[in-house]
Amino acid sequence: MRFCAVLAYDGTNYYGFQRQSDVPTIQGEVESALKRIGGHDVSVIGAGRTDAGVHASGQVIAFDLDWRHEPSKLVRALNVNLPRDIAVRAVNVTAPDFHPRYDARRRTYVYQIYVDPVRDPLKRLGAWQVTEPLDGQAMQKASQHLLGEHDFSTFGSPPVGNNPVRTVYEANWKGLSTGEWSFTITANAFLYRMVRRVVGTLVEAGRGRMTPGEFYDILAACQPERSAPPAPACGLTLINVTYNNE
Amino acid sequence: MRFCAVLAYDGTNYYGFQRQSDVPTIQGEVESALKRIGGHDVSVIGAGRTDAGVHASGQVIAFDLDWRHEPSKLVRALNVNLPRDIAVRAVNVTAPDFHPRYDARRRTYVYQIYVDPVRDPLKRLGAWQVTEPLDGQAMQKASQHLLGEHDFSTFGSPPVGNNPVRTVYEANWKGLSTGEWSFTITANAFLYRMVRRVVGTLVEAGRGRMTPGEFYDILAACQPERSAPPAPACGLTLINVTYNNE
Repeated sequence: MRFCAVLAYDGTNYYGFQRQSDVPTIQGEVESALKRIGGHDVSVIGAGRTDAGVHASGQVIAFDLDWRHEPSKLVRALNVNLPRDIAVRAVNVTAPDFHPRYDARRRTYVYQIYVDPVRDPLKRLGAWQVTEPLDGQAMQKASQHLLGEHDFSTFGSPPVGNNPVRTVYEANWKGLSTGEWSFTITANAFLYRMVRRVVGTLVEAGRGRMTPGEFYDILAACQPERSAPPAPACGLTLINVTYNNE
Repeated sequence: MRFCAVLAYDGTNYYGFQRQSDVPTIQGEVESALKRIGGHDVSVIGAGRTDAGVHASGQVIAFDLDWRHEPSKLVRALNVNLPRDIAVRAVNVTAPDFHPRYDARRRTYVYQIYVDPVRDPLKRLGAWQVTEPLDGQAMQKASQHLLGEHDFSTFGSPPVGNNPVRTVYEANWKGLSTGEWSFTITANAFLYRMVRRVVGTLVEAGRGRMTPGEFYDILAACQPERSAPPAPACGLTLINVTYNNE
């Protein structure tokens, strides 16, 4: 029987989602937990292959498992078998051909920043520390150029043989309590490192080193060397993946 | 020269504030950093001896150090020498007889809770997971009985030979985004484990297992066995300490 599950994790201590030999990964931990539960090897597919250090509150995974009880009991069984920094939030039975990556229609990521000249130990695991004040209006104005269908080559590379055109549906900066910023971006899909490179470049606009118009020029140039370096992984969280039949 | 400093830390990986041999503590880490900077043993005094796993954003410490540069350079020198989960937020020269604990007039703690039947890895280090909905009005009403001068023996024991009377100036529950609660409490001083036992007992009122009036009876009884068990350390943060001359 095929199940889909919503997965949350603090990515700090993992080498990203995708299984690797000899280092801890999210996929590896979930597959180990499923093997303990099911007594046989289980392959997990994820909607997004998040990088090392990137978090998730709404990653979607699928796997095949012989399970004769309620899905809610599978939630509990999985969480007992998962480390404290990974949790299954919900499990449902799904179609046998459901594929969390190919079937996904939209992904939403949130990137969090705190502005502080001195580092804050209580924020360090979930946000990027920027030491100088940011111009929220400039960042918001620049980010509106991301909306719609574009070749995003400046901000990332597609899988080999794939095209670099993606559609961004939402790109919004929100100022939270003093000196905290949160950037939400939704697209049909993202190129490798795209969100972090977009954020790194938007923050250049926030620092006043680039106008929103110059941000557009960089996007339109389709030249990876014009992107700022990617913002650190710790600030990024995959919060939602949507499907047609939800 | 005597300095006072504001200290922030993620207490997750420490055995509390106070120095102990063979286990990592906040005081031990700061003293090691000061020794590397000053070249001699330095004793650190803290305003509050936070328990293992308790955090701080506004702990106040004092120490004597030979330092010929600006205090702001001492902030940088300390932060370079401290682990990532501890940071000095500010340093100032202070009176040679300043004592952060004896001179403190008020301390403020915040306790954070999230309500969720399934654990959330992204909240686990800074909040207590409660699995059933809480009645915020009941918790708030009960907490108002804490205000003023009381014998708080139900919720903690004083140092030997000291009295258990403390004065609470502020006790407020705030509902944050869905299912998140934050409790702020300010007093002249607190008994050992007092905040965590108060929160543990207030949450019983929030769960409907106790009326606000019964909470008052428990407080007035001055019987430690009537307190609920202390709420977990991970939810607690020392956010502020105030002094007369601030």
